[in-house]
Amino acid sequence: MAKLPEQEHPEAALGWAARDASGLLSPFKFSRRATGEKDVKFKVLFCGICHTDLHSLRNDWGFSTYPLVPGHEIVGEVLEVGSKVEKFKVGDKVGVGCMVGSCGSCDSCHDHLENYCPKMILTYGSKYHDGTMTYGGYSNMMVVDEHFAIKFPQNMPLDAGAPLLCAGITVYSPMRFYGLDRPGDHLGVVGLGGLGHVAVKFAKAMGLKVTVISSSPGKREEALQHLGADAFLVSSDVSQVQAATGTMAGIIDTVSAVHPILPLIGLLKNNGKLVLVGAPNRPLELPVIPLIAILGRKTVTGSSIGGVKETQEMIDFAAKHNITADIEVIPINYLNTAMDRLAKADVKYRFVIDIGNTLKEA
Amino acid sequence: MAKLPEQEHPEAALGWAARDASGLLSPFKFSRRATGEKDVKFKVLFCGICHTDLHSLRNDWGFSTYPLVPGHEIVGEVLEVGSKVEKFKVGDKVGVGCMVGSCGSCDSCHDHLENYCPKMILTYGSKYHDGTMTYGGYSNMMVVDEHFAIKFPQNMPLDAGAPLLCAGITVYSPMRFYGLDRPGDHLGVVGLGGLGHVAVKFAKAMGLKVTVISSSPGKREEALQHLGADAFLVSSDVSQVQAATGTMAGIIDTVSAVHPILPLIGLLKNNGKLVLVGAPNRPLELPVIPLIAILGRKTVTGSSIGGVKETQEMIDFAAKHNITADIEVIPINYLNTAMDRLAKADVKYRFVIDIGNTLKEA
Repeated sequence: MAKLPEQEHPEAALGWAARDASGLLSPFKFSRRATGEKDVKFKVLFCGICHTDLHSLRNDWGFSTYPLVPGHEIVGEVLEVGSKVEKFKVGDKVGVGCMVGSCGSCDSCHDHLENYCPKMILTYGSKYHDGTMTYGGYSNMMVVDEHFAIKFPQNMPLDAGAPLLCAGITVYSPMRFYGLDRPGDHLGVVGLGGLGHVAVKFAKAMGLKVTVISSSPGKREEALQHLGADAFLVSSDVSQVQAATGTMAGIIDTVSAVHPILPLIGLLKNNGKLVLVGAPNRPLELPVIPLIAILGRKTVTGSSIGGVKETQEMIDFAAKHNITADIEVIPINYLNTAMDRLAKADVKYRFVIDIGNTLKEA
Repeated sequence: MAKLPEQEHPEAALGWAARDASGLLSPFKFSRRATGEKDVKFKVLFCGICHTDLHSLRNDWGFSTYPLVPGHEIVGEVLEVGSKVEKFKVGDKVGVGCMVGSCGSCDSCHDHLENYCPKMILTYGSKYHDGTMTYGGYSNMMVVDEHFAIKFPQNMPLDAGAPLLCAGITVYSPMRFYGLDRPGDHLGVVGLGGLGHVAVKFAKAMGLKVTVISSSPGKREEALQHLGADAFLVSSDVSQVQAATGTMAGIIDTVSAVHPILPLIGLLKNNGKLVLVGAPNRPLELPVIPLIAILGRKTVTGSSIGGVKETQEMIDFAAKHNITADIEVIPINYLNTAMDRLAKADVKYRFVIDIGNTLKEA
């Protein structure tokens, strides 16, 4: 018979979990494995709330298992290291993002793209190598293979830096991979939420000209004044869209609802790239002739987080350029309210749970 | 008042034209411009019949103008050259593909990508610089700017080489541009028609492993025995598709009907590219999560013919590797029958009109 979560492993842990697809979170006693020779054990200090957490809690994609402890934008302080750990020592600040394991032997793993390994293990809701379920960062303590732990830069705020471990790398990686990082090039960013607002900051730091594309005219001032975008374009405004036709080297599209991409393809230059990082659960309409013809050879592509090496590069780049997420720090007992607000997009731009100071034994 | 086609220019010409969207072709007297200083005048010897000709004749895309003389896979012999012509002399063999002009000053033109110039002038059915309509290769004689004329290699058969000027470059260009030319890599080719059969030949010459993907099980022997593909996959056969999952670096999709691309995306490796060169007139369904996630960062993109420089490179490569199209040579008075057969895909794989020997004054 399978052991209870509390008895599976030797180390007692406390988190907040959903027990079913209502998604309601409440305190949950479970356990973590003993610190292995390549493992890092750390006290969780802050954890960002990603929209994926909400989808998972409510089983929107149909593959959630319960109890479910979400959280994959995790920052903490090292409590213990295994005998063969090389990157960390006790007291170091450490970050963990969306994954905690991979096969280590496939082409993707060899290419530092653990995120595309077919056996990649998610930080929560996956089966770990030992067969037990993974539990995420809405918890007081974690044990991870050091390979999947990020060295958190000294000058990076622990709370406002946490969301970069998912939202940050999700937009940074395709900007680098698809060459959308050339100073002076024109980049579009669709959607001004957790991912989009960080994309604008990275793009400005790389020297790009950035246009925020949004369905909400009300976000203009925020985009231009607060985030420093160069231009703002209302996606439903035909004349605005036409004026920008054929000007963009690429577009980072963070929208996860089904939406039309024909106007976005029209904004691209020849060889331009539309990169989808949101994940609508129904197919989009792909017009083919605009991909092929006049100002053609346009690309629609996707990207999912990034490898460990690139995540480290991203957080170091962010630290150097003082890039953080705009956050609202909450105590853990505000969690269910925060989820309801997140469902209504009522946050600028990321909730971060102050785990270290607010998650206590009842 | 506009001049009649016969009186527009000083040089009398004879072609076959459609007068309306019935698409029925019949002899047509018109005229060609005098040979300008950068122009080449040539006698047309052979002209391939592209599926685009049929679409244009019948106004399938809604922008045809009549009278319409189709033909953009044209091979001929030079009769006269202008005073500043550098590439050609009288008696040379010359090829003309899908375009006869462009602006010459935009980024695409500077990058040898005249095919993506917003002012690109098609070989037929476009307005030329002088305001007159362009007429294609179903005609006894042509005058073209030498920039858009291809030097036809000595050892290339004039009839079987003609289709390479459209079908050949259409598949060759994306193979080069998207890096789908690496020996040993696995390439899928969807559709075994005029484009697909040439794609297999180019891919084999480049040293790729080629799998033909078709909805018709009956094409297996043709693909494997005759064209030399390494494997054949019936797109509706789930077990065959699953066995090939995640193996292909790229796929050249030549199908111009609306068709599902989800199974094709599944065949791609991480970073794999699905290149659409057919042009369905309605949108395809684009599933997003398969682009993004496990074995992700996949790309759906398009490509349209190629620039002049690359077309020359393509035909020289074909000559070196003895690549030609498989053709059925027809006399010009068979043209309407050939169009009806083409509409039923009843040709292996390209009709080529013997203009030189069969197009005569009545």
